[in-house]
Amino acid sequence: MKKIAKLLFEAKILKDIPRSGYHFLGVGKESVAEHSFSTTFIAYVMSELESDVDALKLISMCLVHDLAEARIGDLNTVHKQYLTADEDRALADTTRGLAFGNSLKELVREYNEGLTTEAKLAHDADQLALILELKDLVDIGYQPPNSWLSNVMERVKTKTGREIAAAIMDTRRDEWWLDVTT
Amino acid sequence: MKKIAKLLFEAKILKDIPRSGYHFLGVGKESVAEHSFSTTFIAYVMSELESDVDALKLISMCLVHDLAEARIGDLNTVHKQYLTADEDRALADTTRGLAFGNSLKELVREYNEGLTTEAKLAHDADQLALILELKDLVDIGYQPPNSWLSNVMERVKTKTGREIAAAIMDTRRDEWWLDVTT
Amino acid sequence: MKKIAKLLFEAKILKDIPRSGYHFLGVGKESVAEHSFSTTFIAYVMSELESDVDALKLISMCLVHDLAEARIGDLNTVHKQYLTADEDRALADTTRGLAFGNSLKELVREYNEGLTTEAKLAHDADQLALILELKDLVDIGYQPPNSWLSNVMERVKTKTGREIAAAIMDTRRDEWWLDVTT
Amino acid sequence: MKKIAKLLFEAKILKDIPRSGYHFLGVGKESVAEHSFSTTFIAYVMSELESDVDALKLISMCLVHDLAEARIGDLNTVHKQYLTADEDRALADTTRGLAFGNSLKELVREYNEGLTTEAKLAHDADQLALILELKDLVDIGYQPPNSWLSNVMERVKTKTGREIAAAIMDTRRDEWWLDVTT
Amino acid sequence: MKKIAKLLFEAKILKDIPRSGYHFLGVGKESVAEHSFSTTFIAYVMSELESDVDALKLISMCLVHDLAEARIGDLNTVHKQYLTADEDRALADTTRGLAFGNSLKELVREYNEGLTTEAKLAHDADQLALILELKDLVDIGYQPPNSWLSNVMERVKTKTGREIAAAIMDTRRDEWWLDVTT
Amino acid sequence: MKKIAKLLFEAKILKDIPRSGYHFLGVGKESVAEHSFSTTFIAYVMSELESDVDALKLISMCLVHDLAEARIGDLNTVHKQYLTADEDRALADTTRGLAFGNSLKELVREYNEGLTTEAKLAHDADQLALILELKDLVDIGYQPPNSWLSNVMERVKTKTGREIAAAIMDTRRDEWWLDVTT
Repeated sequence: MKKIAKLLFEAKILKDIPRSGYHFLGVGKESVAEHSFSTTFIAYVMSELESDVDALKLISMCLVHDLAEARIGDLNTVHKQYLTADEDRALADTTRGLAFGNSLKELVREYNEGLTTEAKLAHDADQLALILELKDLVDIGYQPPNSWLSNVMERVKTKTGREIAAAIMDTRRDEWWLDVTT
Repeated sequence: MKKIAKLLFEAKILKDIPRSGYHFLGVGKESVAEHSFSTTFIAYVMSELESDVDALKLISMCLVHDLAEARIGDLNTVHKQYLTADEDRALADTTRGLAFGNSLKELVREYNEGLTTEAKLAHDADQLALILELKDLVDIGYQPPNSWLSNVMERVKTKTGREIAAAIMDTRRDEWWLDVTT
Repeated sequence: MKKIAKLLFEAKILKDIPRSGYHFLGVGKESVAEHSFSTTFIAYVMSELESDVDALKLISMCLVHDLAEARIGDLNTVHKQYLTADEDRALADTTRGLAFGNSLKELVREYNEGLTTEAKLAHDADQLALILELKDLVDIGYQPPNSWLSNVMERVKTKTGREIAAAIMDTRRDEWWLDVTT
Repeated sequence: MKKIAKLLFEAKILKDIPRSGYHFLGVGKESVAEHSFSTTFIAYVMSELESDVDALKLISMCLVHDLAEARIGDLNTVHKQYLTADEDRALADTTRGLAFGNSLKELVREYNEGLTTEAKLAHDADQLALILELKDLVDIGYQPPNSWLSNVMERVKTKTGREIAAAIMDTRRDEWWLDVTT
Repeated sequence: MKKIAKLLFEAKILKDIPRSGYHFLGVGKESVAEHSFSTTFIAYVMSELESDVDALKLISMCLVHDLAEARIGDLNTVHKQYLTADEDRALADTTRGLAFGNSLKELVREYNEGLTTEAKLAHDADQLALILELKDLVDIGYQPPNSWLSNVMERVKTKTGREIAAAIMDTRRDEWWLDVTT
Repeated sequence: MKKIAKLLFEAKILKDIPRSGYHFLGVGKESVAEHSFSTTFIAYVMSELESDVDALKLISMCLVHDLAEARIGDLNTVHKQYLTADEDRALADTTRGLAFGNSLKELVREYNEGLTTEAKLAHDADQLALILELKDLVDIGYQPPNSWLSNVMERVKTKTGREIAAAIMDTRRDEWWLDVTT
């Protein structure tokens, strides 16, 4: 059980790691844990929209997809030009002695490989979480997200993902609660 | 799809809501989204430790268990002495027109009722997420979490939950990474 | 005197409670204590502009008008759709055993009833404090306050309140100090 | 009315000025507006405890006692060794063209002179606001406030002030709400 | 050596002092230490562009130019209308008993006098650090920096300083890394 | 000059990168720019204490020693177990087309090689900046820095460095200003 406690403290540090893309963007702020929550929530929604998908796999995959950032940090596009990350070794150290360690590593491996339906949807969920942030910042009046959005939109590959992305771009950040107050 | 986009913006606001217990405690800080991530991650771990559990239900339940806080705010023990929350109506408004709305509401209802194995584990995951924070603050040197911990420990009910709670109390916040640097 | 000390610690927690409307707005940040300061300062100014007003009552009323938020939290328009707050009981608990407890409760009751001149001005001071924030954010370049301002402006009811509101909208956030530096 | 609007924007900037003593202390954080709220709230309480006091004068005095910090900044004990502040000129600029300008300046002058009962209580309210913060930080487990407290305690001069100070030191930061949750 | 340690703790507090101009501007945030880093880095760049300059003097001058703010605080244009700072006495206290105290004071004196080539470049570095911040904020979409920039641009006096200022205004905040990601 | 402006925006982003060690430590907070300021200031002090040292080289070396973190991020001991950074390529991209690019790269190369007197002192300045932070946190009452300090102390290698480290450990964070207020 000690090994479990250490794993939980490790995942907990994701709350303290700010996503590094935002200072390159110039606005916005989000911890890796917050991003993981968003991505996993989107995966849950996708799993309800898609009939032929392993919902448990899709949701779990998103939940753990950034776990290695506890040891590696949050790398953005600029960082990745100069850094080589040994994510396999990071996850090996994270899961050593853990009964379900292989299952956890397999989820991340499948995500990184990106071949299965679940992995493709998970990658889209990851991008949709960013699109949601960028659209929110655009509605507030910031300039920089405008020049990022077209790039990020293109990274969304699945049909469901593309439909959700289009819907986000077509919805104001405050529409959900305006209904109840007016 | 517009309805989906509104749901995602609604869940996104959980990143902006600070958990209200921490200013009563005097230290610590966490958004509702970060707490949801922690709780869901703990549920994932529990689902690997428990053989007879519906993992998808348990994990999804934790993921959405605080969704109503987008409309209701984060209420702590003091608040609950004076406030009556109509969580049903909040979730009805959140899910109106959503194909999987009933499924989402049923997850929260089962969580609140607290009778099934998954609901009991989910409640423990919620408390374990707090125990993890309090133990972390104790290790740093803060006094107030010491007087909260015994109360919170008693709220953990399942066998697995109690074992994890004990392991957390027996583990230092930094043990997980000390292995690799020494 | 112990009862006094407890009251002061209770009022002190208003510094730690962020006003919940700002994350719905998307920009801005203010503690309940800061809002109470603003409202009370505006009340002081109003008391100097109005000849037939009980200045002590008006200023004290604004100073304590949000005291119950220490126990209830800061509820915005969305929250109020779903929450019922027993502010009377909160204030009863706050003032139990306090010599001037009835006087304090009476101030809040008169504020909430909104019938006296002082209560009407106090309500306007509360709205003017928000208008001041929104105008400030507009001057900085944010979009969302523009769509809130007309609603908030309409909530201002007294002649003096309306004149101040119009003056705020007609004044740039930095005019007060530009005089001395140029 | 334009002059009023400028005054309100000036008072509003007190929300953005952090009290400079806290980084010398090493812990804690408070805006000048938050400190003004605390001081004014304590003055309100004192005015209820004292029979022969001009409550309106006492409360208003505390409300505006740090207004000049909008133009001068928040100066702590170290700063005051090296800086000479022309607070009169600052207030003259703040109140120029304001119908009640002399009344406002007179309040601050009486506060600074410190001779009247109200001024003495107001000075004590200012120190009590700091004692409240320091006691709160001591309860959390911080060391530095311990070495400051005896100095600050000695600055409290009135009988009522000293009684409140003693009561604060004798009360835990969380006693006020423990009653209702246990 | 004790005297050295005290000097280092004194310089360290510059990390905790926010530059006071930003709340007057309405956006942005920077510690005095961060500003000192920027200014010194710009001085280093200038020293490489200028052939006839004492690079060590120029760089050291910028590094220590705001050291007195540890005791005096960060004064902006508004503050300076009302405050008289005895910077000489502050630096005398800082350097008392320090073997290289006179050398340090001489650097600041030469900076304040502003007559030598190095002092002129250092003053421009100080302004360029602000121009860099303002241009960054303009690119993000904020309004207030636009009305400040022409004033600040005029304070830049040297040929090299003016060329760098023009180049900053002609460069987007994110151009430096767009090269590597596209 | 455009290339210069891009370099300045690149160095500016160091203000937005939090040093990643602090969330592993559990307390404290510092931007890379703030750390660079501290390190450079310590180097300036060392250059005054050491007779046979190239002061310009030592100070400049510390000023630029973390410049590559703009592209690579701030890597702590845990990160370095899993990441391989191509700092040479990062600096090549940073300095491409810059007249003094080779000079800048040579400074960083010499620092990383760690063989010259200046490089050894610069490495010690880097560690002393951390010791200063840790001692400050110890004085405030935090536990975790105590277990880090002995490791960090051992990394200091030069005689001057060791003397300063000992003096820091022997000095309270607030001694420098207690002199003037008592």
